[in-house]
Amino acid sequence: MDTPMDVKDNYAALYRLAMQADVTPAEWKLLQEHTIVRDIAAGTGLIEAGQLVERAYFCVRGLFRLYYPLEDGREYNVAFTVEGDFATSHAAMITHQPSSLTIEALEDALVIEIEHTLLQQLTKQHHSWERFVRLSVERLYIRKEERERELLYLSARERYEAFLRKYPGLAERIPQYHIASYIGISPVSLSRLLHQESGG
Amino acid sequence: MDTPMDVKDNYAALYRLAMQADVTPAEWKLLQEHTIVRDIAAGTGLIEAGQLVERAYFCVRGLFRLYYPLEDGREYNVAFTVEGDFATSHAAMITHQPSSLTIEALEDALVIEIEHTLLQQLTKQHHSWERFVRLSVERLYIRKEERERELLYLSARERYEAFLRKYPGLAERIPQYHIASYIGISPVSLSRLLHQESGG
Repeated sequence: MDTPMDVKDNYAALYRLAMQADVTPAEWKLLQEHTIVRDIAAGTGLIEAGQLVERAYFCVRGLFRLYYPLEDGREYNVAFTVEGDFATSHAAMITHQPSSLTIEALEDALVIEIEHTLLQQLTKQHHSWERFVRLSVERLYIRKEERERELLYLSARERYEAFLRKYPGLAERIPQYHIASYIGISPVSLSRLLHQESGG
Repeated sequence: MDTPMDVKDNYAALYRLAMQADVTPAEWKLLQEHTIVRDIAAGTGLIEAGQLVERAYFCVRGLFRLYYPLEDGREYNVAFTVEGDFATSHAAMITHQPSSLTIEALEDALVIEIEHTLLQQLTKQHHSWERFVRLSVERLYIRKEERERELLYLSARERYEAFLRKYPGLAERIPQYHIASYIGISPVSLSRLLHQESGG
């Protein structure tokens, strides 16, 4: 699909998602003109657990990790967000409850910041934006169900393979202990598993 | 909110949800006239793992258990559906993939059966029905996130208390081993935990 000239480069991926929801050029402008693009430095928390969430973030460039900080100091990675996807604590935003998740940039990143109030206005006034949000939430929901099944059904090795399939190229971009936390085993167990795999 | 006379009794709860999405009386009729109410006998599978899902079910009366049948014969309860809620394998329906879940009636039940093709037609043509589906999926998503947190953060006792809060009255309607499976402990551990609680 061609992207019209007046859709700024940073918006191209979000624009393609909007087109899938039949957003018209005029409706698209309502979003593009009322959002900003922000630089996020590696190591920065985009959203912090315990805080209210008043914006959604679309990842243009970079990489985020979504995790639950446990009371005992451990952290439990639940997802990663790469280019072309939302890095956001959706449940916290729509329920106006403090986020349980922290979202941290693992690389210098660029995001499109969308105010929740803008999203509410757009979905109220435009069928297409309502559809856009519906499709976005469905994607989130499908992934949550998928992950629940993975944790239940799959062995550690199969969960690692599922991680590689779901996030192509990511294993080279993040430290191994973040992968271990995501698939629910200790870094030592993951290292042992990968060692076995290579026939060692 | 008053329910108009021509909304049949069995549809009253679904009608209230539709009103929250600003469905008009004319739009409501499009759904009511193209759906049927079905009796489901206790013990019947509404949806079976491995099968395609072509309908959504709204629970008018009765009680359902949603579970993953594991390969080793164990079953893992992920949710229950009571009156006024959807009992459906949403991810399977929208992705046209076989369901991973089985949904079984634990009591004689009454459901409103909604064809997926009807839902697609309604959401395509009516902003209000699009909103209705968006809100329904958001509810599903919030519960999935909540459950993930419960399994991560809470002790077995706290998970049991969360179950009681989330499903008022349900502990009296289902066997204890179904609750044990839902909170992720063995029936023996749950029985011990409840015994301790009563000061025994």
